[in-house]
Amino acid sequence: MSWELTARDLPDLARGATLLGTGGGGDPYIGRRLVEQVLGDRTITMLDPDDLADDLFVVPTAQMGAPTVMVEKIPAGTEPLLALRTLERHLGRTADATMPIECGGINSMIPLVVAAETGLPVVDADGMGRAFPELSMETFAVYGVHGSPLALAGERGEQVVIDTGDDDRQMEWLARAVTIRLGGVGHIAEYAMTGADVRRTAVPRTVSMALDLGRAIRLAREEKRSPFDAIADTLARTPYSHVRELFVGKVRDVERRTTDGFAQGSARIVPLSSGDGSSQDERVCELEFQNENVVARVDGRTVALVPDLVCVLEAETAEPITTEGLRYGQRVRVLGISTPAMMRTPAALDAFGPQAFGLTEEFVPVEELALQDAALP
Amino acid sequence: MSWELTARDLPDLARGATLLGTGGGGDPYIGRRLVEQVLGDRTITMLDPDDLADDLFVVPTAQMGAPTVMVEKIPAGTEPLLALRTLERHLGRTADATMPIECGGINSMIPLVVAAETGLPVVDADGMGRAFPELSMETFAVYGVHGSPLALAGERGEQVVIDTGDDDRQMEWLARAVTIRLGGVGHIAEYAMTGADVRRTAVPRTVSMALDLGRAIRLAREEKRSPFDAIADTLARTPYSHVRELFVGKVRDVERRTTDGFAQGSARIVPLSSGDGSSQDERVCELEFQNENVVARVDGRTVALVPDLVCVLEAETAEPITTEGLRYGQRVRVLGISTPAMMRTPAALDAFGPQAFGLTEEFVPVEELALQDAALP
Repeated sequence: MSWELTARDLPDLARGATLLGTGGGGDPYIGRRLVEQVLGDRTITMLDPDDLADDLFVVPTAQMGAPTVMVEKIPAGTEPLLALRTLERHLGRTADATMPIECGGINSMIPLVVAAETGLPVVDADGMGRAFPELSMETFAVYGVHGSPLALAGERGEQVVIDTGDDDRQMEWLARAVTIRLGGVGHIAEYAMTGADVRRTAVPRTVSMALDLGRAIRLAREEKRSPFDAIADTLARTPYSHVRELFVGKVRDVERRTTDGFAQGSARIVPLSSGDGSSQDERVCELEFQNENVVARVDGRTVALVPDLVCVLEAETAEPITTEGLRYGQRVRVLGISTPAMMRTPAALDAFGPQAFGLTEEFVPVEELALQDAALP
Repeated sequence: MSWELTARDLPDLARGATLLGTGGGGDPYIGRRLVEQVLGDRTITMLDPDDLADDLFVVPTAQMGAPTVMVEKIPAGTEPLLALRTLERHLGRTADATMPIECGGINSMIPLVVAAETGLPVVDADGMGRAFPELSMETFAVYGVHGSPLALAGERGEQVVIDTGDDDRQMEWLARAVTIRLGGVGHIAEYAMTGADVRRTAVPRTVSMALDLGRAIRLAREEKRSPFDAIADTLARTPYSHVRELFVGKVRDVERRTTDGFAQGSARIVPLSSGDGSSQDERVCELEFQNENVVARVDGRTVALVPDLVCVLEAETAEPITTEGLRYGQRVRVLGISTPAMMRTPAALDAFGPQAFGLTEEFVPVEELALQDAALP
């Protein structure tokens, strides 16, 4: 069933999208302000994927670039629509709706900017079910809808169309080169598809899930309940139903670099009771990220890994923290969250499993890693 | 008047185009073989710019990339036509003719490949009047025709359209990024224009000039005359009328690197009588190149600089030598050749004068540098 999104929903949506961003995806705050400016008192119609006409023409819109750059390079707000119009012109067909390619981070907001500017509805679904660093890491592509042709718009009105046929990795490779030369951020329209394609290839109802998560955290805080229990209760009603607390501690080290248009690095978290780090037998949680958190290890043992979600949240308020937001001494809880079955098939793992991030280990679901852990002596 | 080009003309055209390539522009040999394969016994109609209908639609075609890569990465031959078709589709208009953007080097041949494949005529003119390393270094752009939108095709069928409005440098910047990620070579269609635009902005009859130069060198060799006299006699009938021998000697050092998609470096030439280079007071000619030779200095004094032509030729046969072809010990003559007035206006020098290549010195025509030289004590 379709529903209406208002500007009042945006802070909750941003909070939930940051959680689903698993450390990356860009800060939705900037996108949220863009939506608020344009939307005013109007509403955005959100379409349930089950209700879409088979031949509805859906053109997803998004931002691409390193989140570390996105924080400093604020879009004018007109670029995503320019990307949409460029792709429409190229395809000779007008969009009936837009959709996120990514429900985590700023890309939860970019389609809403387009919707507020045009009155187009937004499909409540996405192609990542979280955030991922590359345009080819999409359930759309895994299940047969290709990203190409892609349209890319820059802040000075640059318009680029990239057509690589069914080679989504080459599309990503070329679009990334253009984005880097645009200063690190570009706005895109890609993965144009029909309503029937959406039902077959998208992760459904991820925008409403982000909104529910953000709202549940806020309400729990207001009512002095545990926001972490609220997260678990909310996710229990979705295909992201397993939640595990992986570690509680404080941030000891963060190492970050922006390389080839990506934010890469690692973080170490130590117990709250830890001293100056000189103890050799101290427990430690290590996170690796490539824009998003890709793996969490505790004392060297993997406890959650991509495509499952590794989320760092403020230890008391459950405010999600991005990798750019990680600071020495922060008290945090690290959660592992299971992803839906369609994101764990062999084809899906080929596109965005551990090997796609250069890890050598095989994917093991976070709920199985927890069982292995419990079975240890 | 229009004229017919045959496969038998191609070796002469390639020789002349290499001379006009001033060390860069890519080796026309590869392009020549592509034309021969497709053309067979047919001919290509070459259109004189003065005869073009005002509304004739001309779409230039070319290759872009570092010449050092072009030598090793041989195109399939279908890429330039794919670039043309991509731009036609984008513009919704079919080309009546193609044209070189650059008469020096391999880009003298690329439009002929397209013509042989399609039967389209080729306009006998170009936008560089020689070879230059960047797509924005065009008399077309200097006199008001912009390169954008540009279509770019890769060897695996990739199609990219780049529209930067009237910003030709941004077009070059983005197209270069894509070309680098395609492996160093891309094929392009750009600077689409009308017949009236060609007459206003192109350097006229540069294809026939290249052909005349190549033929004159060959005939002089066959008839045991000086090919250097033949070059001077041929150029005397064109707007490139001043030719000066800058140095005769042998190649001592060549330093080359391929950086950011360009072949950059320098060469040192010493007198034929020179020994092992240990003499401190020995005369020396130094060349700097960025794909093309940009400046020649003799004993530290500038004797020719861009946009005038600095050409290195084999000392006896006058075979032009590209920067990739420079070898230790080669006996060479270095010529300085004047460029037409339209390539030396302030606007033209802004686009492709010495400062555009990072040199600090002002442009001085090669014929004036010769007079200054003669006036020395």
